[in-house]
Amino acid sequence: MRVEAFFMLFPILVAIIYQEQFNTTIFGFLITAVGIFILGTLLNIKKATNIKILPRESFIIVSLSWILMALFGCLPLIISGFIGNFFDAFFEMCSGFTTTGATILTDVESMPHSILFWRSFSHWIGGMGVIVFILAILPNNKEGSNMHILRAESPGPQVGKLSSKISVTARILYLIYLSLTFLEFIILLLGPDPKMDLFSSLTLTLGTAGTGGFSVLNDGIASYAPFSQYVIAIFMLLFGINFSLFYMLILGKIRNIFKNDELRLYLSIIFISTIIIIVSLTMNNVYGSFEERFRHAFFQVTSIISTTGYVTTDYTIAFPWPTICFMIIIFLMFTGPCAGSTGGGIKLSRINILCKSAIRKVKQMISPRIVLPIKDSGTVVEEDVIQGAENFFIIYIFIIFFATFLISFDGKDLVTNFTASLSCISNVGPGLGNIVGPSGNFSSFSSFSKFILSLTMITGRLELFPILALFNYKTWKTQ
Amino acid sequence: MRVEAFFMLFPILVAIIYQEQFNTTIFGFLITAVGIFILGTLLNIKKATNIKILPRESFIIVSLSWILMALFGCLPLIISGFIGNFFDAFFEMCSGFTTTGATILTDVESMPHSILFWRSFSHWIGGMGVIVFILAILPNNKEGSNMHILRAESPGPQVGKLSSKISVTARILYLIYLSLTFLEFIILLLGPDPKMDLFSSLTLTLGTAGTGGFSVLNDGIASYAPFSQYVIAIFMLLFGINFSLFYMLILGKIRNIFKNDELRLYLSIIFISTIIIIVSLTMNNVYGSFEERFRHAFFQVTSIISTTGYVTTDYTIAFPWPTICFMIIIFLMFTGPCAGSTGGGIKLSRINILCKSAIRKVKQMISPRIVLPIKDSGTVVEEDVIQGAENFFIIYIFIIFFATFLISFDGKDLVTNFTASLSCISNVGPGLGNIVGPSGNFSSFSSFSKFILSLTMITGRLELFPILALFNYKTWKTQ
Repeated sequence: MRVEAFFMLFPILVAIIYQEQFNTTIFGFLITAVGIFILGTLLNIKKATNIKILPRESFIIVSLSWILMALFGCLPLIISGFIGNFFDAFFEMCSGFTTTGATILTDVESMPHSILFWRSFSHWIGGMGVIVFILAILPNNKEGSNMHILRAESPGPQVGKLSSKISVTARILYLIYLSLTFLEFIILLLGPDPKMDLFSSLTLTLGTAGTGGFSVLNDGIASYAPFSQYVIAIFMLLFGINFSLFYMLILGKIRNIFKNDELRLYLSIIFISTIIIIVSLTMNNVYGSFEERFRHAFFQVTSIISTTGYVTTDYTIAFPWPTICFMIIIFLMFTGPCAGSTGGGIKLSRINILCKSAIRKVKQMISPRIVLPIKDSGTVVEEDVIQGAENFFIIYIFIIFFATFLISFDGKDLVTNFTASLSCISNVGPGLGNIVGPSGNFSSFSSFSKFILSLTMITGRLELFPILALFNYKTWKTQ
Repeated sequence: MRVEAFFMLFPILVAIIYQEQFNTTIFGFLITAVGIFILGTLLNIKKATNIKILPRESFIIVSLSWILMALFGCLPLIISGFIGNFFDAFFEMCSGFTTTGATILTDVESMPHSILFWRSFSHWIGGMGVIVFILAILPNNKEGSNMHILRAESPGPQVGKLSSKISVTARILYLIYLSLTFLEFIILLLGPDPKMDLFSSLTLTLGTAGTGGFSVLNDGIASYAPFSQYVIAIFMLLFGINFSLFYMLILGKIRNIFKNDELRLYLSIIFISTIIIIVSLTMNNVYGSFEERFRHAFFQVTSIISTTGYVTTDYTIAFPWPTICFMIIIFLMFTGPCAGSTGGGIKLSRINILCKSAIRKVKQMISPRIVLPIKDSGTVVEEDVIQGAENFFIIYIFIIFFATFLISFDGKDLVTNFTASLSCISNVGPGLGNIVGPSGNFSSFSSFSKFILSLTMITGRLELFPILALFNYKTWKTQ
């Protein structure tokens, strides 16, 4: 709470710079910041003794901290009066902190700078995971218990140990995150795009880094110059790579990077998807030039696979893409980028394991006694990691189905409901169809559906289990 | 081949009774029957020595026998000139033998009786599985090798042994199948429905027994009297039950039936789905009376869950159902009925195991050291059966995605492509949307897509692995 109160000083600063009215945004952020700071301090007076953080406790800590972040984060929006409805504001901030980027706003341009900044900033905070952030600044003790929290939150099937000390790991990852963010910001700001002013460069960079996707214009990234679009596309691609590979790069272990199966899969999928989309756009004569086709295809592919969700073109209504492109988009929404990045989705390392496991199963049906170990980047994957990936995939499908089912009561069409749920669990942002497509938004859903989708976003962000554990009575039973 | 030649005598008989022109249908069936009888006899001259049927061989036998059944079965349609295109005819007979019921015909009423009969008869033949049928009439030897064939074909995660001798098992199942078929035929024929003549009763019964779904009128079952609709609905429900439970009933083991988890799940899903559909139809004022709502809801639920695919109402265009009903239909298309029935889909015993396994996974994440066995009908399920169900589900989803992707090149909408693929792999018949919905058909797909969907039907019918094995180079390697 106190950390979030600190973060809220930044939108207040933005509000002061852009001379916003005191009794709306500044008041909203200030009262919330002061409130949660006091509350956080009060709760901290009675220090807990005999702390024992087991998986159960870490699940509760992680789940609740994300829910509370969004809950407190949405107060300024409500108090300032810019988003009046609680479920709207909660959805918006869940979407922010989980780096989804789905919005209930029909006109983002009418929002004051401080709120737009807070939305994008929440992506950046969420991107690396608040807990990883807190781990990085916490004193370097209680390694064992912190490890559980990191496992509950870190994106991917295996917790990679870059360094034996967790807080050191966290600091390294955080430094890479910070450097890449700064680099993108500078390139965008100094680039030749007149529309890319300080505020746009800053917010769009924050949104890219967290693979979020909130933008500050109604048409997303469409009206920025091609230069800016290419820069953002390349950085979306970079933020979808496992951060430990950047660390390898710094250490000069280039061979390790090339040997990484997941990275190769990531780049191959981006390459093939872009090609298929360009070919089908050409065959259907969408857009006037090859450059446009290439740019929109490449941008959308990197945007969806990294689960950012920025758009440069309205591919459902104004420039309808062929169905085969939508299938590719749906595929990318499922996979997501590499584990250990800021992106959402199933993660390519899991997809890699799942495909190999499926092929192995067919081989084993042919020759039942055959023993076939599955390899990832040259090393054998343990059977319980394979099982974990399989369970993850099945539960992922179950949750998408369940969320789609629940929001179907609103009466919207199947494509809207399915892609909205998929987009939320994978933390992408836009879905498909006229309602939640690239030029649409989530405002027309009922409060109930917005709440379900908010929970879906957090469930996806925390890789399913922490939130599912909240719904299991065993979690709350005194042992 | 010789068995299929024998089966073709029946449509010839129908053609003679309804005085069809000799040079179309009678000639088509006769020349095919004679041709494949001679071919089958020639191939049988050189008896194989030293037969050793391992899984690999059984996969090839089962896959090829189904593909050849459809291939030879479609010849009369082509020769008679009523379905001129090869891919259309192959699709239609794949749909018949796999008991799917998806059609490429835009006007079934224009077809001669013999062809309509052959379509429905192919459902009945396919329903119980040609191999089980052949097992039942084969001499009682080579138990071990037959067991492999039965495993490759029997629907469900575990091969239940009713009797220690396989051919006895096959005979019992076949007798139950025959009795239920006869019972439905008599009730329909003797019922008070003037439209339900001898031909309708016969073909619709054959389609129900195999959970196929080809009908003889353009509007499916809609224009028959409510009495007939209720009878068909109840028999669809019955043919979705594990046949071994009927055997238990004959043996008087009532307690075993009530203890069966899968049956309880089956009846619960039918009950809850019907209720939800009735409520949402009432809230949206679809249809005039409660009786109509109840009848259409109950009929469609039993039709989809049993993967028959008969329809009594056009729920997409003329009487559009609310989206929530479509979600239920999609759910039922995935699950299918009980294992050991004539239905397709994932099967409820697998769904049961998958849900329990997912819940167990969440519990194990909370308390990592906990040991939780999964039970089905009171007995512990072995871990490799659970793993098998998980692999099955994952590969099922993969194939649906892959088939949807491939047929997307035709440019049809997402809902059409997805539900067409799902409907084909689960052997249901109709999909959703305007094109492949209850009043639509598959005629507008390209030949390539029809071929893909034909393969998808066989893959689903044979529970994935036999067909997947055909695509693995290991299957064809000399060991």
